[in-house]
Amino acid sequence: MKIYISDQIPKQIRTNLPKDNVTYLNSSSITKADLKEIQVAWGYDHHVQSLLDTPHHQLKWIQSFSAGIDYFPKQQLTDQKITLTNTSGVHSEAIANTVLLYALYFMRDMNLALNMRRQKQWDGSRHYEELTLLSNKKWLIFGTGHIGQEIAREAKALGGYTTGVNHSGHAATNFDDTVADNAYSNIIQDADIIVNILPLTPETTHMFDHQFFNQLEHLYLFINVGRGPSVDTSALMQALDDGRVKHAALDVFEEEPLASDSPLWDYPQVLITPHNSAVSSEMLPGVQDVFVHNLQTFLKDGHPDTNIVDLTRGY
Amino acid sequence: MKIYISDQIPKQIRTNLPKDNVTYLNSSSITKADLKEIQVAWGYDHHVQSLLDTPHHQLKWIQSFSAGIDYFPKQQLTDQKITLTNTSGVHSEAIANTVLLYALYFMRDMNLALNMRRQKQWDGSRHYEELTLLSNKKWLIFGTGHIGQEIAREAKALGGYTTGVNHSGHAATNFDDTVADNAYSNIIQDADIIVNILPLTPETTHMFDHQFFNQLEHLYLFINVGRGPSVDTSALMQALDDGRVKHAALDVFEEEPLASDSPLWDYPQVLITPHNSAVSSEMLPGVQDVFVHNLQTFLKDGHPDTNIVDLTRGY
Repeated sequence: MKIYISDQIPKQIRTNLPKDNVTYLNSSSITKADLKEIQVAWGYDHHVQSLLDTPHHQLKWIQSFSAGIDYFPKQQLTDQKITLTNTSGVHSEAIANTVLLYALYFMRDMNLALNMRRQKQWDGSRHYEELTLLSNKKWLIFGTGHIGQEIAREAKALGGYTTGVNHSGHAATNFDDTVADNAYSNIIQDADIIVNILPLTPETTHMFDHQFFNQLEHLYLFINVGRGPSVDTSALMQALDDGRVKHAALDVFEEEPLASDSPLWDYPQVLITPHNSAVSSEMLPGVQDVFVHNLQTFLKDGHPDTNIVDLTRGY
Repeated sequence: MKIYISDQIPKQIRTNLPKDNVTYLNSSSITKADLKEIQVAWGYDHHVQSLLDTPHHQLKWIQSFSAGIDYFPKQQLTDQKITLTNTSGVHSEAIANTVLLYALYFMRDMNLALNMRRQKQWDGSRHYEELTLLSNKKWLIFGTGHIGQEIAREAKALGGYTTGVNHSGHAATNFDDTVADNAYSNIIQDADIIVNILPLTPETTHMFDHQFFNQLEHLYLFINVGRGPSVDTSALMQALDDGRVKHAALDVFEEEPLASDSPLWDYPQVLITPHNSAVSSEMLPGVQDVFVHNLQTFLKDGHPDTNIVDLTRGY
């Protein structure tokens, strides 16, 4: 059986894969003839798209590299009855650790420390009002899946109170409380930190818009570790200008890479990371495990076992 | 009764103090005559020292602003039978939160993100090997008092394994394990993160010297949130140059303020904060609480109640 490994998959996890009855192809070795024989693809690149566009192809299953799968041609996968699996669960700790870093960066006034280093000039004055702590902070976390739950667990362990937002308001592990996504307007002014970790769907596109930010009065920190297009960037900048949002930490953007002329770079109260909140040396074995486990099931039963995406919901 | 409030004490906590039978003096209002009548001092400055140097003074108790009391004239206090109380316990969470920030700053490669911002140039390459997580990290924490215990609690909640170092190796709350301060040499190479939070005493002065750092092979992070003179800075810089220590985060220094020509400023792998790891808006009420509680006991019984320093031990 032929399996295509896309350019998205790092070298480190292309070794130690199951060998029996399997031929692995990559972007250097794939030929036009292979397009009609490949049954499995790991990750997404233009060859995977060519595969999907090839009449009478044999592709049955794609294992994504990421947890979010918004960049896949979902309608085409649905029409062609291709199973898509994601890596949901593998990135939770890295993202949650990064969220803590974002919060602590502002709470411990790292801008002051780093300006001090730039100028090689000690500032010993005591900025009591600028320095705060994680305990007793109220978190409002949009998304209560694996990643949201791990963010909530860590925030709670450090003394925070966590409210999760999901579609129905159903209870979720590690959250003190949950509300439905149409019922948070009476608690939003109390939040200290808002985190978005929702998948990108038509419903979540520009969910954080002018109307959303206008409900806030003095939010300490807005964090986006979900997907960039969920936030209307101009509305966020307006909220920062108005002081409705004091700080923001963004790992994802409406357009990536973030352009050099984006005004976001000029906000000292905005922390920008290059869509790497989920990345860690520890993640790669986890990503490989999901693929290998699903491949073994696929070879035996003809379909993958875990992390199957509901293409209608989009996650 | 006359009480002197030193310049160390912030304005915010000079209000709402007990009023009955008490006159508060400060550096603007104190007169030479007061030096023979003051019975209590809050904090330390040159007026407190003048008080101690005045023959036949009436000073009986000093409440320090800080947890560490190394800068007080301990021999003089002992000779004059003056009780010294500290604020141990008030700063634990701020210091522990700052320690987490230090660790996450390097684990999530904030130098990359901040260089990116400086150049307004997105770097989307995936630095898997540079990015890591808090779970499964081994912490070796020198000092198992209030602050060490809170660092251990937070490190453990985030998946770390914590070993505490104290004088006898006695067990301590929140630590997975403890060792005596002459018995850690066989586990030190396994540590990922070493934290110093010991008080400054003759025994801890230059405790972290060439001999100490030469035992290390590739420590991920060395943190000093105790006192600067516990570390031989030139030995630490040698260890950074040799790669025995990969990163360092320092809140305290052998000389403070850190001089503009200190070579430490030039190490990108060293994070420098201006002795503010304990500072927060939340700390001030805690500092006031300790003073007011002890003052009430002093007014009633003639001696303070809590946080009494053992001047022989030095903490």
